[in-house]
Order: sequence, then structure tokens, then C-alpha cells
Amino acid sequence: MGAKRETVTLIGAGLAGSLLAIFLARRGFRVEVYEKRPDIRRDPAGKAGRSINLAMSVRGLHALGQVGLRDEVLAMAIPMVGRLIHPVDGDRVLQPYGQRENEVIYSVSRGELNRYLLSAAERQDGVRLHFNARCTGVEFRTGVLYVRDDATNHVHSLRPDRVIGVDGSASAIRTAMMNVGRFDLSQQYLTHGYKELTIPAGPDSAYRMERNALHIWPRGMYMLIALPNLDGSYTCTLFFPHEGEYSFASLQDPRQILDFFEMQFPDATALMPDLTTLYLDNPTGSLVTLKCFPWHYRDRVLLLGDAAHAIVPFFGQGMNCAFEDCTILDECIEAHWPDWGSVFESFGRRRKEDTDAIADMALANYIEMRDLVSDPGFQLRQKVGFLLEQKYPDRFIPRYSMVSFHRFPYSEALYCGEVQEGILRELCASISSADQVDWNTAERLVGERLDARRTPGTVR
Amino acid sequence: MGAKRETVTLIGAGLAGSLLAIFLARRGFRVEVYEKRPDIRRDPAGKAGRSINLAMSVRGLHALGQVGLRDEVLAMAIPMVGRLIHPVDGDRVLQPYGQRENEVIYSVSRGELNRYLLSAAERQDGVRLHFNARCTGVEFRTGVLYVRDDATNHVHSLRPDRVIGVDGSASAIRTAMMNVGRFDLSQQYLTHGYKELTIPAGPDSAYRMERNALHIWPRGMYMLIALPNLDGSYTCTLFFPHEGEYSFASLQDPRQILDFFEMQFPDATALMPDLTTLYLDNPTGSLVTLKCFPWHYRDRVLLLGDAAHAIVPFFGQGMNCAFEDCTILDECIEAHWPDWGSVFESFGRRRKEDTDAIADMALANYIEMRDLVSDPGFQLRQKVGFLLEQKYPDRFIPRYSMVSFHRFPYSEALYCGEVQEGILRELCASISSADQVDWNTAERLVGERLDARRTPGTVR
Repeated sequence: MGAKRETVTLIGAGLAGSLLAIFLARRGFRVEVYEKRPDIRRDPAGKAGRSINLAMSVRGLHALGQVGLRDEVLAMAIPMVGRLIHPVDGDRVLQPYGQRENEVIYSVSRGELNRYLLSAAERQDGVRLHFNARCTGVEFRTGVLYVRDDATNHVHSLRPDRVIGVDGSASAIRTAMMNVGRFDLSQQYLTHGYKELTIPAGPDSAYRMERNALHIWPRGMYMLIALPNLDGSYTCTLFFPHEGEYSFASLQDPRQILDFFEMQFPDATALMPDLTTLYLDNPTGSLVTLKCFPWHYRDRVLLLGDAAHAIVPFFGQGMNCAFEDCTILDECIEAHWPDWGSVFESFGRRRKEDTDAIADMALANYIEMRDLVSDPGFQLRQKVGFLLEQKYPDRFIPRYSMVSFHRFPYSEALYCGEVQEGILRELCASISSADQVDWNTAERLVGERLDARRTPGTVR
Repeated sequence: MGAKRETVTLIGAGLAGSLLAIFLARRGFRVEVYEKRPDIRRDPAGKAGRSINLAMSVRGLHALGQVGLRDEVLAMAIPMVGRLIHPVDGDRVLQPYGQRENEVIYSVSRGELNRYLLSAAERQDGVRLHFNARCTGVEFRTGVLYVRDDATNHVHSLRPDRVIGVDGSASAIRTAMMNVGRFDLSQQYLTHGYKELTIPAGPDSAYRMERNALHIWPRGMYMLIALPNLDGSYTCTLFFPHEGEYSFASLQDPRQILDFFEMQFPDATALMPDLTTLYLDNPTGSLVTLKCFPWHYRDRVLLLGDAAHAIVPFFGQGMNCAFEDCTILDECIEAHWPDWGSVFESFGRRRKEDTDAIADMALANYIEMRDLVSDPGFQLRQKVGFLLEQKYPDRFIPRYSMVSFHRFPYSEALYCGEVQEGILRELCASISSADQVDWNTAERLVGERLDARRTPGTVR
């Protein structure tokens, strides 16, 4: 494909935009990237440096590996081997994510990863990044795109041949697409929102809790989580109802806040000296599931990543899914270029069912994280699931593992997860520990209900 | 409530907007109505005069009756006693909608009804209508509304205390609401669209088919329907896939069009001399189901009618549902005014479940109209349903009747319809005609599964 020097225009230089620019440049395209924000690499350290941690797993790592960036990203990541559950009282319990040494997920800072990918994109031949350049509209029929320079307020009009909207869940490209006709869209907000808090490092950057775990304080109707940062601190997130008796709306007084946290999250509260200040200063975020279709307009415009399918964060798959989009789009270019209409159409057709599936699994995982992880029945089923995977490694792969440690299509993980849950409920109905499993029944149920699967790209 | 002269601003002077203006004026409010289109009463006869007929039933008639307009509207309507099914070959069959003399629905011209309601609104004290006045944006936080005079292109800014968006399925108010945050929305297009056609009157305005029926040519994957006009003509609508082997995309050549119609709708085709011209000239419409929530912003802005809940036309309930919105909002004003926040909040709380229900029933009815009406099993169940209604008039009211001849909440009709369908399927499983019903079983099933219902406002 060396001969072509077609240009592809990307709207958005977040995680998906900067990685996609690298994929496209490596195929020989020129890439023009417009980002409404300033260049975060020139931002003073502060906020973005440890804001909103991500859990990187196999799909994200695979895409990074395709463009040769996997090892460098892993060097800025902290492996997390499982969920470390903090009850109100009683002992903490580690629930491992997997059962093999490499079955871990990685805590990585969104800001640091974005900075790294921007620089990697800029090193590619043909990639140009434009910051403070806000897309203010697209006229689909004429193909004109308006970009405003936020420094000068000057609005340029462009006529790009190919535009890919990688501008996130509030995508301007998607909003413009709603005027084209017959565009299906669904956006559903959770009644819960989130707020970021921090557990600072101890003396000499010491970690004040276990380092290699994702910490969860599950409390039924809400939860607190914490992910480790490289500097010894933890980024915490409180997921909490917007309205109601215990909610962001009702919990606003410093004394009340402290009382509530000391009652519900005593060990975390002891590690958060700035709790009430952070709680009152930090904004309350919303959580939305967004589905839409079609993702493209003719051979000219495509949506990718959160712009096409925003999901809630409870499966740690938002970034992984967007990076896998890059892998799949690259395959569609391989198969159909230079027919961009087919490239875009086949991308949507291959990907829609899977992104719908991870959206639904992410919603279901909120219940699992804030509630089920404390349930002995759930813990028993998880243990029995690992035993079944040991005995039938090509048939019974727990759903969490299918999503996080293998690259099975999300829709397959959704389907198999439901079959597995049925098997586990039958096997665990009348036992109280994993060593009491009736292996004859297990053999029969697995044989009847689960086919042997080829494993497409396991972890590493 | 005479003392108050609060002003309510309506965006849209379609059917819902003009009726709502009358309701509000009768409660003593000043009403300012902004409509982007010209005054259709000044439009030359042409198109709007017989475009898209409506099927008026009890909910619409009740609302009109509340403001004293029922009889005059009935004078411009044609009663339709049932569906007249036109098979490809074989005899036409009339499937009655109800079984009592007054259980009919009414064909009425959208344009004529809109003209009539505009004049009725203008006669009310305090109502002012502004045409060519397009709402171009709302700033929710500041309460500023922008209206452009399409004649002069001048943009006015207003600061209305109370705005109600009755601006239809492409509502500008709803679009602006999407920027306010945590606004749930779902818009799903059918893969089928529609095109309007006409069967002209015969000599001396004679009707060329039965006058008092809704004509259907059900063909499985598509259908043609025809509703009578006062001038002897029929307004026909072809519901047809957008894409595929038989579709608007594939059927574009005059010879093909005629061949297809002669094959599929021979009797109708013989009555449509201008078929190919109309088919090629008239636009292809889209069909969307739109749900959103919340419908209001504080005590300032409300969505009502199609702007809040657009549905597909297959239950003939779009206008009836919007008119019932006016009835319900009027009750909420009675109960909560002058606390407009509570008026708007209670309107949404009372109405959301019911508008979701009619949206789902309207989608289900497309299958019924284009396919099931030709099915002997469906016809048998319908007959047995009427027998059950005769025997248990306070317990078994067929779903179509609950929606069209009674004012039970739509959600109750949806629920009862499912229970009824179960009973009818059991009773009809092993019989081939309605006189073979096992009445002992019927007695038991109805007694077990259906409660006696008080009838809120039957037809007339």
C-alpha cells in the first residue's frame, strides 16, 4: 500500500484517536488529527497525571502490540492480580481475576498513556496533530467540516475525503450524524454517578495498601474502588446514586461526608486526609451507555470508539474495546481498501453485535462489583468455575477470562457466560464448598452445553 | 383560576400545539404559540387538504369533548367500522373493529383538523399564534429562547417563564434538551418506510370502494392501506422496506412499479390512474419510535406529544395519544398549579409508562396489519375474543377495544392484551370455529387470570 498517500482526518486525539493515527500511518496514510483540547503533554503535571485510572487487559495490549508499543506501555503499568474486597468489618479477601500467572489486568494512568501515544503518533511519518482545534459541525451532504481554532476563534472549513470521529461519548460527529436521517440511537444514563478521590502515597512513595490489586469496598447500593498509581498513591472512585437518601444530592455537608465515610469505608477514610475537600471540590460525573447505528455515512464518515459505543466502566473495557476497534478497522482496511464504503460498512457489521454485548456485560458487572462479590454463593460459583476451567480448558473459560484474558468476540463471551452461569448454579445448588462438586454432573453439563472453542489470542 | 394571567409559550402549532393552546386558554393562561411553518389556513387547497389521514378514536374525541369541539370534528370525519381486507385473489373480508354500534374509528384529514383547531385556538381569549417563527435554540440554564422570523431572517430572543415543546418528532426543544445532561433518549427507525398515493373519486364524487372501512392489502413483508376522504377519494399509504429485493431502493422504474402493483394490489391499481407519477414524485417517509426522559427541565420546559414520544402509525394512536396528553396535563395543572415544577414532574410520572406501552403496541400492530390479519388462526382468536367480551363484558375487553373504545391506561391495555392472548391461544388450540369454544375452560381461565375492571370513559 506504499503508493497511496490518501489523507484520513481524525476528530479527537484521546486514547483511541492517537492509537488509530498510528495504525493508519503504518498503512501509509497521511493522518490529520484535530483535538479540541490543548496538548496535554504541555499541561502542568497536576490533575491529568493521575486522573481516572484504566484497567488494561488483553484486547488493549494486543492492539498496542500490533504497532510495537506493548512493552513500553506495560512498563508504565501496575499488574493487578485480583479484586481485594474490603468489608465494613471482618477480613479483606482477595478474589483472583484468573488462575494463571499471566492472567492479570494492568492499572495505567489515562493521562500518561495518552501523552505517550500522542508522542508515538507524532513520530510516525505523515501524522499531524492540531490542538485547540474544535470541530463545530459537519455538513454530511456537502462533506464540509468546520474546525474552530480556540486560540484565535477563527473557523476553518475543510473538505476531507475521509473523516473518523474518535471524539468520545459526547461526539460532535455523532451529534451531526443525527440530522442525516434513519440514525438509530439510544443513550441511557445510570441513576448512579461517580466522584474521584485520592489516597496519597506514604513516606518514600510507599503504598499504604496492597499494591497489586484493584481494591473494592462493595456496599450494595454503592461502592468505592481504588487503583494503584506508580507514585505510591491510589486513585479512588466513589460510585453513588445521584438522588435519594444516600446520594450525591443529600451528602453535601463536610461533617456528614466524614461520618458517612467513617461508617462505610473506615480503613480507606483513615488513608484520605483530604477527603472532604476532594469530595466537595471534584465534579460529580455521569455514567452513560450509548448505542447507535449505522456508524458510517457512505464512504466519508465513520464513528469509532466511545463516539460509536460508550459504555459504563464496570468491566474495565472502555479503552480495551476502543483499541480493539482499531485492530478490527485495520483488518477491514486490509480486506476492502480502497473501497472505503466497504471498509466502513464491514467494520460496523463485524463490530456492532460485540460492542452491544460488552455494553450489556458492563452494566451487569456493576451489580457484580457492588453487591455480588460479597455474596458467598457468588464466591463459591467463581471457585467452581476455575475448577471447571482446569478440567475443561478448551470448553469452560469463565466469562471474565473470555473478556479480559482472551480475545473471543464479546458477543461469544456474553452467550457463554449465560450458559456457564446455568451450569454453575446447578452444580452449586446443594453444596457449600468447591470440593463437594459432583463431577459426573459437571462432565454431563459441560458436554451437553458447551462446545470446544479455539482460543483466538490468549493473553500475551 | 381567573386572576392569573401567566403566559405559557408553546413551540409548534400542529395538532397537539393548537389543542393544547385551547386547553390552556380555557384555564385562564395567556398562550403564545410559535410555529415554524406558514399558516396552513392560508395555503392553497392542494396537498395538505387530504394528506395523511388520521384514525380518530375515543382518546382524541374525549379531549376534544373537554373543550367543546367534539361534535364539530365528528362532522368532518368518516366512521370506519372495521378493516376491509383485500387478498391478492379471493373475496374481501370485513374484520370489524368492535362489536357495538358506536365501536368505530373515524377517518379525518390531518390538514383540515389542524386548520379547524388553529381557528378554534385563535377564537380563545389570550391566544396569539405566530407563524414563520422557527425556534432555533434554547439555553436551558439562562432560559433564553431564540426564534427566527423566516420572512425577515431576524432572530428574536425571548425569556419565557414556561415553554412547552409540542414541535413533533423532530423537536428542536428536545434536541436542545440533550445538552442538559442525564437525558435518556432512544430513537429506532423501522427498516420500512412509507409513501403516500391516491385513489381519486369517481364521477360525482362517488366512492370507488366501500366508504366506511379502513382498507388493507396485507402482503406479509409490506402492505398498502387506504382511508376514505370526504370528497370521495382515498388517501393510500404504501408501507414498504427501504432496502432489499422488494423495496423503495429497488423499485424505481415506471414499468417495474406498475408490474409490481398489478401483481400485488390488482384492484387498487385499477383505481389509481396516476400511480407511477405519484410514486415517483412523492417523497419516501421514515418511521421512527422515539422515547426519552425526563420530559421536563425544572419548572420551565416540558415536552408533550410526539416531541416526547413519537410512535409508528400502526395503531392509529399518535394523535389520540398526544390529545390524551392534553387531558392529563390539564389534570396535573388542576392538581398542582401554580407549582409548575410539580405540574411537569407529575405529568411525566403519570404518563411515561403509558406512552412506552402504546409505542410497543404500535410496533406490534404492524405485524398484525401486514401479516396476521390474513391468518385464519388470528381471525378465529378475534372472533372468540368478541364472544368472551359478550359473556364477560367487565372482565374481557379485547386489547384493540381497550385502546380505541375505552380510556384505560395504555399500560393496562398492554398487560391485559398479553393475558388475553394466552387465554385465546389455549381456547383456540384445538378448535376450528368459534362455536366450538369450551365454555367451562373459558369460565375458568377468565376467572383465574382477569380481574373485573371499572371502565373509565368508554366511547361516546
